Amino acid sequence: MSKGSEQNINPQTNNNTVEKNSRELIAGFSKFNREERIRLLQNWLGEDLALELNSFLHSNPEFQTIFSEFSENYLTNYYLPFGVVPNVLINNEFHLVPFVMEESSVVAAASRAAGFWAKHGGFKTEILGTTKKGQVHFMWSGTSELLNASFSELKEKLITETDSITKGMRNRGGGISNIELLDLSSKIDNYYQLDVSFDTADAMGANFINSCLEKMAHVIEVYFSNFEDDGTLEVIMSILSNHTPESVVKCSVQCEVKDLKAMSGQYSAEDFARRFSLAVKMAQHDVSRAVTHNKGIYNGVDGVVLATGNDWRAIEAAGHAFAASSGEYRALSEVDINEDGQFTYSLKIPLAIGTVGGVTKSHPMAKVALKMLKNPSANHLMEIIASLGMANNFSAVASLVTSGIQKGHMKMHLSNMLNQIKATDEQKEKAFEYFKNREVSYSALNKLLNN
Amino acid sequence: MSKGSEQNINPQTNNNTVEKNSRELIAGFSKFNREERIRLLQNWLGEDLALELNSFLHSNPEFQTIFSEFSENYLTNYYLPFGVVPNVLINNEFHLVPFVMEESSVVAAASRAAGFWAKHGGFKTEILGTTKKGQVHFMWSGTSELLNASFSELKEKLITETDSITKGMRNRGGGISNIELLDLSSKIDNYYQLDVSFDTADAMGANFINSCLEKMAHVIEVYFSNFEDDGTLEVIMSILSNHTPESVVKCSVQCEVKDLKAMSGQYSAEDFARRFSLAVKMAQHDVSRAVTHNKGIYNGVDGVVLATGNDWRAIEAAGHAFAASSGEYRALSEVDINEDGQFTYSLKIPLAIGTVGGVTKSHPMAKVALKMLKNPSANHLMEIIASLGMANNFSAVASLVTSGIQKGHMKMHLSNMLNQIKATDEQKEKAFEYFKNREVSYSALNKLLNN
Repeated sequence: MSKGSEQNINPQTNNNTVEKNSRELIAGFSKFNREERIRLLQNWLGEDLALELNSFLHSNPEFQTIFSEFSENYLTNYYLPFGVVPNVLINNEFHLVPFVMEESSVVAAASRAAGFWAKHGGFKTEILGTTKKGQVHFMWSGTSELLNASFSELKEKLITETDSITKGMRNRGGGISNIELLDLSSKIDNYYQLDVSFDTADAMGANFINSCLEKMAHVIEVYFSNFEDDGTLEVIMSILSNHTPESVVKCSVQCEVKDLKAMSGQYSAEDFARRFSLAVKMAQHDVSRAVTHNKGIYNGVDGVVLATGNDWRAIEAAGHAFAASSGEYRALSEVDINEDGQFTYSLKIPLAIGTVGGVTKSHPMAKVALKMLKNPSANHLMEIIASLGMANNFSAVASLVTSGIQKGHMKMHLSNMLNQIKATDEQKEKAFEYFKNREVSYSALNKLLNN
Repeated sequence: MSKGSEQNINPQTNNNTVEKNSRELIAGFSKFNREERIRLLQNWLGEDLALELNSFLHSNPEFQTIFSEFSENYLTNYYLPFGVVPNVLINNEFHLVPFVMEESSVVAAASRAAGFWAKHGGFKTEILGTTKKGQVHFMWSGTSELLNASFSELKEKLITETDSITKGMRNRGGGISNIELLDLSSKIDNYYQLDVSFDTADAMGANFINSCLEKMAHVIEVYFSNFEDDGTLEVIMSILSNHTPESVVKCSVQCEVKDLKAMSGQYSAEDFARRFSLAVKMAQHDVSRAVTHNKGIYNGVDGVVLATGNDWRAIEAAGHAFAASSGEYRALSEVDINEDGQFTYSLKIPLAIGTVGGVTKSHPMAKVALKMLKNPSANHLMEIIASLGMANNFSAVASLVTSGIQKGHMKMHLSNMLNQIKATDEQKEKAFEYFKNREVSYSALNKLLNN
């Protein structure tokens, strides 16, 4: 709303905590309850707003309380379609994978690739590591020699003094696995880090890691206050890192080139393999293509990340930074065609996720999603997520090098529409013929079938 | 489900289109209707599943139809909390910003920064560009000289032959703004691109761009078939790029250092400014910190991106690749404290979003979100999204360099709980004192207040 529209935004409320202290600012907004927030919005969005927002609430009060407590200044629930990708064969076990995504044709694309690979050995995965890291970032005005000399004594203290915080995690097989002192003073004068490695078992572990680090910050402050003649130590911040190049899963698929016929459209299996391979190499050498190539991977990744209540911003940031780690942003996947005619496609992707804690176990639908996956360990969920990333990317690149993305997109869209209206085979044939070179839409389809 | 569990997953259905052709694979799954999909899941997730999934459907059939058609293999709706960040002052205009996020305390963090900056001039933004790009990736076995020599004639053809596709967009002020021929044969033998620039007005423009590019691919194939004695041209793929370094918005805030007192916690305003500045510099020089720093920006960005029905995978991929464009992944924001004691914090972020097309205008809540923002142009939405990114990041870094993220997080969490139970001032004081060094939880709070 524009300046001076005070009257319009004034909530009609008797609550004393609601106060307005300026012409522009709505003071005390965070103390408004949901009703007051909506009343305020209603003054300029119309009287029907409350009714519309309320229609998105869940009918089960227990569930609804959970949703309304997930975040501050809550108004209502935002819906995203929750679907399923079937036939995902991973390490010889079939999965029906829950998937949350607003973009149409992503589920269809992932399903197509999953179905194809299920007939050719499926996805093979390997956990390359699960180490997460966090840092205490600090300034030290003394010599690095003194820091280094103190470090082994200090390290022991850091372990001992975080004992009570790490106890529960140690019982679950996790904990602090390493502490290093990093000298970054060549980048910023006096800048050092405690670089701490963690294993967090089935949890994403953000709270655990941050609690450990904040305690460690306190420990080094106290420790170095004894050396004040030699230098001053100032902690700037203590925080986990979402850069997780040591929490990585590898996923790969393999078949004979000739088996690719089912995906090769108008091309021979050999031509398809060659074109697919070129497309992936282009994504390894050209940033414009690399970004979109990886975006296709994350279409598959994020669908499962959201469904299981994990944090997609963390996953995306980690993945794209990892893609840039060579100094040039490039594709996360690789292709190989060997002399024996074996086609291998593989993906390495950093994933720091959890199957306990946070939203994972409190969101009713995330619970269903995990149940659909047989309540997997965090490691197994990494494998599933990577497989979906690869499935979606494989399907996208396959479309790009054959019929093109538009045709594929529109055809899938049309196919779904026809299924939804329970079209007959004759109607389907008619529609596919008609829309070969025309824009697909519901109204055009209706017109066609009713003529 | 594991191999051989055929009986468990066999949907009890009379629909002839449902067939199973192997012990493992569920054939024809995409032709199952929603009921059949759920029945299949029910066989191993329990009879209550349908009831639970159905409870997430919308009561308005018109809305529900929209949601069920967003994506394939649809089961139900996934809920994310939809809230609001108040007091967002951007270029002298106040906004109430719709926000969708599963992570608690993000809305509170953004609101805190928005409230602070509203009292100090607010966010100033500038659109640095809105150009989106796409490429026709092709192999050419002839000389680059011949390609170059043909290019000006070809360029004209490409414009003319996409005329019917671009007409509507040109009427809305967009269209093709440039076409370049890029020689990438030093990276991959024979690899060239048509690198095409687009303006897409208020649309994200994916379908428009891809349709133009696929048409262009056809045009160059036909054109170079006349040169077959000189070389062969093979288009590998034609696709928009999510790398959008020319669709960028800059956002900045500025105040006197002394005004930072309200954010400086236990520190003086000067110390806070110095520590904040160091924290940002660390994120410019250390990748571990940079990733998390930018993740905090995207906590703010994605909340608005989701609420308005835009594609967060595209936004994330573009932003993190942009952060890596110097060859080293680094913070997207910068800080400056000048000699006159002026503190300036700024952010440059690539955003390719739309306010028409796609989910934007079909999702009932995305429509409400856009209405809350007064149905902004795509450019104005870029400004709003960038401001929220900056708001959340500013608040996160401010917490990190003062009380630490855990304390801040837990305190906000406690504050929300106390508001929700309508605690008295006395109860609040008691609770804040009690939880100073204790883990915050509902049960602990209940116990405390009932004693």
